[in-house]
This record gives sequence, C-alpha cells and structure tokens, in this order.
Amino acid sequence: MHEFELIQNFFQKLTKKSSSSLNLNDDVFFDKNNKLVVSVDTYTKGNHFIDFKNPELVIKKIIRSSISDLVCKGVKPKYYFISGSGNKETFSKSNLSKISKSLKQEQDKYKIFLSGGDTVFSNTLSFTITSIGFANGIVYRNKAKIDDDIYVSGNLGDAYLGLLVLQNKIKLNNLLRKYFIDQYFKPNIQLRLTDQIIKIANTSIDISDGLLADLDKLINTQKLSYKINLDKIPISKNLKKVLGNKRLSKINYISNGDDYQVLFTASKSKRRIIKKISANCRIKITNIGSIQSIAKKSSVINDKNIRIVLKNKGYFHHF
Amino acid sequence: MHEFELIQNFFQKLTKKSSSSLNLNDDVFFDKNNKLVVSVDTYTKGNHFIDFKNPELVIKKIIRSSISDLVCKGVKPKYYFISGSGNKETFSKSNLSKISKSLKQEQDKYKIFLSGGDTVFSNTLSFTITSIGFANGIVYRNKAKIDDDIYVSGNLGDAYLGLLVLQNKIKLNNLLRKYFIDQYFKPNIQLRLTDQIIKIANTSIDISDGLLADLDKLINTQKLSYKINLDKIPISKNLKKVLGNKRLSKINYISNGDDYQVLFTASKSKRRIIKKISANCRIKITNIGSIQSIAKKSSVINDKNIRIVLKNKGYFHHF
Repeated sequence: MHEFELIQNFFQKLTKKSSSSLNLNDDVFFDKNNKLVVSVDTYTKGNHFIDFKNPELVIKKIIRSSISDLVCKGVKPKYYFISGSGNKETFSKSNLSKISKSLKQEQDKYKIFLSGGDTVFSNTLSFTITSIGFANGIVYRNKAKIDDDIYVSGNLGDAYLGLLVLQNKIKLNNLLRKYFIDQYFKPNIQLRLTDQIIKIANTSIDISDGLLADLDKLINTQKLSYKINLDKIPISKNLKKVLGNKRLSKINYISNGDDYQVLFTASKSKRRIIKKISANCRIKITNIGSIQSIAKKSSVINDKNIRIVLKNKGYFHHF
Repeated sequence: MHEFELIQNFFQKLTKKSSSSLNLNDDVFFDKNNKLVVSVDTYTKGNHFIDFKNPELVIKKIIRSSISDLVCKGVKPKYYFISGSGNKETFSKSNLSKISKSLKQEQDKYKIFLSGGDTVFSNTLSFTITSIGFANGIVYRNKAKIDDDIYVSGNLGDAYLGLLVLQNKIKLNNLLRKYFIDQYFKPNIQLRLTDQIIKIANTSIDISDGLLADLDKLINTQKLSYKINLDKIPISKNLKKVLGNKRLSKINYISNGDDYQVLFTASKSKRRIIKKISANCRIKITNIGSIQSIAKKSSVINDKNIRIVLKNKGYFHHF
C-alpha cells in the first residue's frame, strides 16, 4: 500500500475537522490558534541510513531532515525531541558521546535545543525526531496556481552521489568522495529562507524523496501538472564534473532524494523579489519550470523542448 | 547504563538553560512562554507489549500510557502523533482498520485527535507517540516537601496480574482473566483529575514502572525518603480475592508497573480538600504514606510498623 493511500483510508478521519488542521496531507501539523508547528519522522537503519559506523554523521542527517520539514514551510525550528531505539552497541558510551557532541553542533548551527525523548531497547536501530516551531502562518501543500514558476533552493543530486559512493557503486578520488559524502550526511538546510518563503511561495515542500516524487506530492490533490526544464535544474560544479567525466546522464541523478532543499511555486509577478531575496540571503534559488493545467501531462523537457523519459521518479513509501 | 545516568551524562547539557525547561528530568517538556506541554515515548514489541495479536488493545495501551504523562502533571492532552515502524503484516489492511477504529474510540474517550505521524518499514515493531497539551502551569517532579502525604489514584496491581495472565504465569477463571487483561490493556486514565491535581499536589508522576520505582524517580534529586504503608496501598476487590485464594503476598503485586495511576504528594493541610475532590470527581484517592528526611531510610511498613523487604521495586530501563 502506498503511504498516501494508507493515510487516506485509515487515518484521515481521525483528524480534527477544522481549518487549523492539515488533515495529515502535509509534512507538518499546524495549530493556528496556538501558532504551533510540529513535525514527526522516524528514521530506521537500512531504510534512511545505511549503517551506524559514524553516529555523529547519521545524527546530523536525521536532525537536518527533521527540521527541513519546518524550514520549507517558512517555520524556524525551536526545539526537538529524539527517541532512539537500539541495543547496547548503539548506545555505548563512545557512541553516546559522539551523538551528544554532534547534537551540540547542530543546536549551535540551527539555534535549536533538545527538549526530551526516550531511549528503548531494540535490535532494529531507529530514531524518531519530533521538531517543534512557532509561526503565525505556514506555506501549505496543494496551493499551487496555474502558470506559477517552480523553484528549488541550492543544488540537487549531490546527496544521491554521496549515497552511491557509500554503497561503492561509484568510484571517485578522495576529494570528491569527501565532498559528496558530506553532502549526503550534512545537507545544507536553508534556515535563512524561512522568513522569506512565507512572503513569496504559494506552496512548498522539502525534497526528501526526489525532485519529481516530491513535486507530485506537492500538488497531489490539485488538478494540475508540471513542466520541468532538465537543463535548468541546479547541480554543483562537482556533480557536473562527475557526470561529464563518467558520461552519466543528468536526469538519473537529480531526482533520487536526500537533497533537503526547498521546492516551491510562486506567481510570475514575484520573479524580481525572488532574485533580490536570493542575492540578499546568498541562497541559490533557481526557476526550473512551471505549473500547468492537468490537461497537459507532467513532463521533463530539455532545452530543445524534447520530453525526457525517466527511469525513476524517486522514492515512494510502500507497505 | 541506567537511563537516568545516560540522560545526565550525555544529554542534560543540550537542554536550554532556563526555568521553562525541565532539563530532561521529568516525563514531560513544558515551555512556559508558549504554555506548551509535550511528551514523547517509544513502545517496542517485547519490551512494552508482548505481541500484536490484538492491535486494537496494544494501541489503547500505548495511547493511554502516553497521555498519562500529561494527565499526571495536571495537563489535558489535546492531540497526538503516532509513528509506527513495522512490516507488511503489522500494517495489513485488517490491522490498520483495527488500529484506526481503536484510535477513534480513544479519541472520543479522552477528547484528543490525531495530528500526524509516520509509518516506516522495520522488522522490529515499535510505535513512538508524541502527546501535546497546553497549560499555564504543571506539577513538577522533585518538589516534594518533608511530611507531605503520599497519594495514589485508583488501584494498583491489576495490570501486572493481567500481564501474568497473558504470560500464562497465573491461571484464573474466565471472568477474572478478562478483568485483569482489560486492566492491563486499558488502564483507567484519570482525565478528570487534571484540573484538580494542579491545585493540590506539590509533586507528581504517573506509575508506569512500578509504585516504588516511580516514587524513587519522583524525588530522585531531592534529599528525601519515603515511608509507605503496605496495607493502605489500594487494590481492587478482584486482586484482593486472587491474592487471598492463591495465598500470594500483596507486596509482590503492587509495584510492578503498567498501572498508569497518578502518584503525588501534598501537604497535610490539603487532606480535607483532597477528600472532597475524590468524592466530587468520583476518583479513589488514597493516602499511602509520607515523605521524610533522607536521614531515615525509604521503607515499606505494614500495619504493625514492621519493615517489609522487597524482591523487586519495579522496572528500571537499562542498556
């Protein structure tokens, strides 16, 4: 069963019927009366991270993934809760010390603090992170408008290449190895964008499962489609170099997830202000396509306006 | 490593240094400025529940356990998040339907609603519940005063007997079987006490690990001890009957956890008002002993003032 179906069939009816609830059809919960924004996510070994050889890196990845849910909605995370399930090895003094130091670094970087959690014994290693922030309003899903521009922050694909390196599926020199692995474990969350996104975006999501998978999710209850220009999708110089050297095609490397960049749509009238925000915040914000009527099929095109066929749109949660 | 040590050594320093934070030394997090109260707990199969043959019952138990953390602090739970890790069998349509129905019943009973969560694949079944409420103030841990009376709500020990029945460690007739198993899966959370406890209690905790284990935790940073009168510890007529018939001694059945009753201390001057609240709310509230100076050793005595030696104080979380 698709995760979306699961929610719709069994859990939608349990939410409060009011405008302040998001009916589970978003990445965060927003209680408008109390100005409260909450995100809860579980990360398991084998699923969300390969192993626990570097606890300090895994911790960074899951904390950033969790606060990314808030950041993409225009909300500054304020505190977080971490609930860890693992065995004696996971929670050895050495690992706990690494986890604690790494959390401290994330706290300093993102101005968040630990507020509670739980540790329980389990043979399957997993963490559930609850992140909390406060806001007067948030950017919702499913609020795109026809002809909206589609934007992404930062670069895409680096994290996926990092994963391939970790899986020994691609061989690179040490410098590039380090670069991509770093991007995989330490995605650059666009905290400075939170105050701005609320002013410009009609709808937003963070890219965790892959550009196109998340674009589908962003408008999944709307009668809309998208047209993306492959050549405009922003990638790093390092990724460009690797794709060139190894003759790999870009399309297979930009929609595989773990980017934790902000994907949003905005009215064409906002183009100038978005350029200004991008310059002022020193955050790369790229216009990669537009929203269109469902009469047209969602597509990825190249500069010659030729449709490109995808092998894989990204990661979908199934049971 | 003891859970308390783990928190103190590795995570205490990550909390915000302010009066509004509880420094992880409590069951809930309280953000005084935002009037927000949060509890996060993880429940794993094998640890917190035996199996998943009755998903609807397991779900009731973990939801009640989670909101119990808020209720014992004088806080009404408002909404909850559920993050489930499991496999295809766990999340079969039949199980999801049972889970959904059971959640609906709990929502109606306790006036809470589902606000989000996550489902991920894992071979180890576990759930993390985040419960949220709002309050101007809460009852803290470690605020007991010398000579305070010690009180518990409801009855203790029924849930433990239910567990023994489920484990086939004790044989009972069908009527009693059903009674105790019900008490194990469906502890009676004292929601009506929330508005009152804040007026009367100096300090409080819920009994999840066992009366004496939780009493130790309640005053773990205070230079205090307790004296409990075994004969005063409230038990149900059914438990009394079983203990009598099987010649079991009470002391081994009242401090084994899963009771989810409120344990609190209050000044002797509050005795009359507590009796009144008990009558008005129709909740059994029993004075079972008192807080004393650490110069005296914590003890359980009987009516003849003879100290009783315990085999087991309850459940402690270790790694």
